[in-house]
Amino acid sequence: MAMDQKVNISVSLYLDTAGNLSKEIDSASKANCSSVTVPIVHWNYNREFVREPLRSKHGPFTRSDLLLSSTQWLNRVICRIGDNLDLDSPVDHIQRQAERTIRQEMSFAEHLVQNGYLYTKLSSTNCANFARTVGCTMFKGTLLVEVPITNPKLTQYGWRRDVAEDADATVESPWCWWNTFRCHADYNPTVKVALELTADVPKQEEIFRWLGEPVDAIVLPANIFLTNAKNYPVLSKAHQSMLNLFYRTFSCHFILKANPSDGHLAHYVDYIKYTIQHNYVKNPLHGYEDLLQIPLQPLYDNLDSFTYEVFEKDPVKYIYYQNAIEQALLDRVPEADRATATTIIMVVGGGRGPLVRAALNASQTTNCKVKVYVIEKNPNAIVTLTAHINELWRDRNVELISTDMREFNPPEKADILVSELLGSFGDNELSPECLDGAQKHLKDSGISIPCKSTSYINPCFGSKVFNQVRLLERSPHWKDRVISSRHMEQAYVAYQKNAYHIDNPQPLFEFVHPNRESDDPIDNNRYKTVRFRAALDCVMNGFTGYFDTVLYKDITLSIHPFTHTKGLASWFSMFIPLTDPVQLRKGDEITVHFWRCVASHKVWYEWSLSAPVVTHVHNIDGRGQPIWQ
Amino acid sequence: MAMDQKVNISVSLYLDTAGNLSKEIDSASKANCSSVTVPIVHWNYNREFVREPLRSKHGPFTRSDLLLSSTQWLNRVICRIGDNLDLDSPVDHIQRQAERTIRQEMSFAEHLVQNGYLYTKLSSTNCANFARTVGCTMFKGTLLVEVPITNPKLTQYGWRRDVAEDADATVESPWCWWNTFRCHADYNPTVKVALELTADVPKQEEIFRWLGEPVDAIVLPANIFLTNAKNYPVLSKAHQSMLNLFYRTFSCHFILKANPSDGHLAHYVDYIKYTIQHNYVKNPLHGYEDLLQIPLQPLYDNLDSFTYEVFEKDPVKYIYYQNAIEQALLDRVPEADRATATTIIMVVGGGRGPLVRAALNASQTTNCKVKVYVIEKNPNAIVTLTAHINELWRDRNVELISTDMREFNPPEKADILVSELLGSFGDNELSPECLDGAQKHLKDSGISIPCKSTSYINPCFGSKVFNQVRLLERSPHWKDRVISSRHMEQAYVAYQKNAYHIDNPQPLFEFVHPNRESDDPIDNNRYKTVRFRAALDCVMNGFTGYFDTVLYKDITLSIHPFTHTKGLASWFSMFIPLTDPVQLRKGDEITVHFWRCVASHKVWYEWSLSAPVVTHVHNIDGRGQPIWQ
Repeated sequence: MAMDQKVNISVSLYLDTAGNLSKEIDSASKANCSSVTVPIVHWNYNREFVREPLRSKHGPFTRSDLLLSSTQWLNRVICRIGDNLDLDSPVDHIQRQAERTIRQEMSFAEHLVQNGYLYTKLSSTNCANFARTVGCTMFKGTLLVEVPITNPKLTQYGWRRDVAEDADATVESPWCWWNTFRCHADYNPTVKVALELTADVPKQEEIFRWLGEPVDAIVLPANIFLTNAKNYPVLSKAHQSMLNLFYRTFSCHFILKANPSDGHLAHYVDYIKYTIQHNYVKNPLHGYEDLLQIPLQPLYDNLDSFTYEVFEKDPVKYIYYQNAIEQALLDRVPEADRATATTIIMVVGGGRGPLVRAALNASQTTNCKVKVYVIEKNPNAIVTLTAHINELWRDRNVELISTDMREFNPPEKADILVSELLGSFGDNELSPECLDGAQKHLKDSGISIPCKSTSYINPCFGSKVFNQVRLLERSPHWKDRVISSRHMEQAYVAYQKNAYHIDNPQPLFEFVHPNRESDDPIDNNRYKTVRFRAALDCVMNGFTGYFDTVLYKDITLSIHPFTHTKGLASWFSMFIPLTDPVQLRKGDEITVHFWRCVASHKVWYEWSLSAPVVTHVHNIDGRGQPIWQ
Repeated sequence: MAMDQKVNISVSLYLDTAGNLSKEIDSASKANCSSVTVPIVHWNYNREFVREPLRSKHGPFTRSDLLLSSTQWLNRVICRIGDNLDLDSPVDHIQRQAERTIRQEMSFAEHLVQNGYLYTKLSSTNCANFARTVGCTMFKGTLLVEVPITNPKLTQYGWRRDVAEDADATVESPWCWWNTFRCHADYNPTVKVALELTADVPKQEEIFRWLGEPVDAIVLPANIFLTNAKNYPVLSKAHQSMLNLFYRTFSCHFILKANPSDGHLAHYVDYIKYTIQHNYVKNPLHGYEDLLQIPLQPLYDNLDSFTYEVFEKDPVKYIYYQNAIEQALLDRVPEADRATATTIIMVVGGGRGPLVRAALNASQTTNCKVKVYVIEKNPNAIVTLTAHINELWRDRNVELISTDMREFNPPEKADILVSELLGSFGDNELSPECLDGAQKHLKDSGISIPCKSTSYINPCFGSKVFNQVRLLERSPHWKDRVISSRHMEQAYVAYQKNAYHIDNPQPLFEFVHPNRESDDPIDNNRYKTVRFRAALDCVMNGFTGYFDTVLYKDITLSIHPFTHTKGLASWFSMFIPLTDPVQLRKGDEITVHFWRCVASHKVWYEWSLSAPVVTHVHNIDGRGQPIWQ
């Protein structure tokens, strides 16, 4: 298939039993499957349930590891453990035997596949001992836990008139099984979900809830396929779109449960690959998904050349800025005066000059005479700006002032103050503090571009970001710990894909520039209480943060998911964690308190829940993350 | 008062305002009050609500610190902050002003009283900003938070027929205010409760709920006092017993809210002191309350002389042992044979000899001939035992065998095997492993003393033990952390006084000796699920563990609270923490899973909740606390 080069899609064939393993791998391979998912236990070998420690007098309980090379075990086999074992049986001896047996299987499976895949199946919320025995192990590889996307009972109840109506309410979602399992297992990062699609398609919100989970594989049983006119297996539209959604989110692999003696096995596999490839859209931000980044502090740290370059490459941001400046110039300068009157534009935080460029372009397109003052504190950027002034802009009226905008005394007041000081959370790079300081250089009638910024939050769950923060938190490097051990009390920048957004975003803090209404000195402390609601039982481990900004009149930039500026690439959203994940019940109100605190040398956020549970106040006194002024 | 020497009871006089501080301290002192509780703000000084940073041009907002010496400020004054301030007002400017004002008060109060007391009042669950502003500070001294023991609304509703009937259900307990406050404040150990008694007496369970909290002072308003026939203020029986219960639990001090110009102020104070002293019972275990101790591992570590001595001092334990051996001898040896037949008694784990002594005493009182083998592995105890055999017991038939009981080959089999290997949680010092090893030296008809042990648990909350484990957990000593950072996954021995027991204890693991029913090898793994119920909204931070044991027939030893052997002092209860406190709602079922796990060289417990929340499995693989075999 020509499209095969675009994306790498691997399908594993699920076998109930495997007689001759090499042969099975070969036949699966002929059906375009890259591996087989097989039970670790071979039915040829009778197992005796021996007590620990294992006695050497007992014979082997399964086939030898010499059957395959270690590379084959790793790449060609997904080892299934725990078939037909009930570790949570109320019958004591069944539970004990099951535990011993699965430990033996787990140990041998790890011996075989090393850092490859183990596979097991979850089928109930009653799984404390199962979770403890298999879920709490830190695997060298990955344990896939098979969970169906709808409860098998739902299908069954759907047919029975007596229970059909409230089947939804009484049948527990298998997501709850998984949630119980992984809570006992303490969010073990080596345990992931193999999500089995079912003939029933769950409600959209229930599908979305899986987007925050560590889904690694999608299991496709043959019975969810339809047969098209040409007798080929195909999926319904609903199944297709689920498949594509999960692939886009997780880049997952697939496990096909079909009859291995079905001569048309390859048709299933090819159809899966085709469906994914056909709908695949290249993502220019691929590679950044769910990676936590520490927010920039450009006021405190000087940005480096690489960072400037990344931001200057944004395909749309400076076009919007140019549009805003154009509009402001046209509004401000009567047509008759455009050739004579000089408009003073002050670019505060000039960087390597993109806003100067936008201002000069706007001057040209509107035929308005301008003088541009560019204020920059970073001595490294000054070098670039000086070069631009001497070469690129030598015929233009640009004056460079090398200082901190808060301390600067300009020769004249500005008509238009242009800045790009906003972070992913709006005010988190201290644009209010900077612009409050700079606004004294603005004429009373002057314009600030941007003139408003608003931050937004919504509660979310994302297992990848959670595991990253956890890893930092539990880092054994004591030196790290001493410097800042409160990784759960910091806001991160992250392009969140592996996320379930529990409710729609709501506005948090708003800042207006110039701020002439406020008392003097301007108080940029903020305190706001925001309420959300959970549509389903789910888990929350923090908030996703966004912002939008009005540059001028109706010219805005936004990373709010509902109003995101098309093509805007300069900002990822924010992730603001909670120290401990919070279990939510359907209908629960979530009440969160957010503070923006300002002291003489730093600014910081604090946050705390008061419903449905009360949490400690995060980042008190900025102990986890101060933003230095 | 002559009884004053017994206990040190201090009463502070609560004043709404204080004009002349020195004079007020003097008058309070005349009424036998050791201090005054006064607002930090003096009404003589008008406060201007200034913005941060404080401007020096504003005048002082209260009296000077030079009024009193620093010792007087520390010992004679409890500084009240936040009077009439609403930090959680929905009106933005009121909330902002209140926050600024209380910060100013807090800072000045700390300046004055150093490591003494600050005092403030809590009056609602809506306290996120109040908790954040005052509750999250780590004080040099202690912040007392006044909380009434019943909701003032309850009294009011009690008089109104329309709401009287379900007043209980609809009126929120002030305990919930406190719970919300301290959750936001992350269980700040420098913040404690000043519990105000009210005319209404709450239900007993609600009183008990306070026993787990960090109550430091009891506030007594004058209006809860009655007047007796001689016109003296007295308390009702119910109030008296509350007062005594709280004093016994917390050794708290008292704050009297009475009219300072009441000429009979001293009568109130004397009555409080009298009531406490009159009911005070000396506690021989005083000093051990709520101190966490690491459980002994006598199988792994050799006990030292001090530890032996402490245990040998138990006033009742060896009497019960002697009784049990006597009874066993009488049952086993027919009256006719007593002078001739020799009963073989094997003391496994002889220590410095108390069980040998009990056996020899029993032999004497019953006139039964015995030969005592004493097995001991600790070379230091062997020295003592050898001395006893050569001197004290030189005419008695005692043979010392210096070895580990699990490896020993005795010259003959025993009639009676006597041991004292039980820990606070029964099997936690590995008596099952030891006695299983030793039982092969017991005749088929032989008797083991003890013959059975059972552990018990109940859910509990105790702020002192919680804070101690937290302190260990957060210890900045990285070396400690690397050795064992999982302090929340260890069981501790503790004499818990500051504890709310959420439900009655239930049996957990049972071991029987000799164990002839079981398979060979005997399986001492255990897994049990136990369920409890919360009678009230409350918090749980772990389990209290106990045990009882049958020595022989009806002769038992117990530290189970309902059957505690009178005078038994050898064992404190166990405290088994949960990593995070769990909020419970009235009626919630608590489901806990406990495992006893046995591997070749260690034994350990694991535990996990599955209701009302699912927790991670604690102490997986014994990572927090292995018990070495």
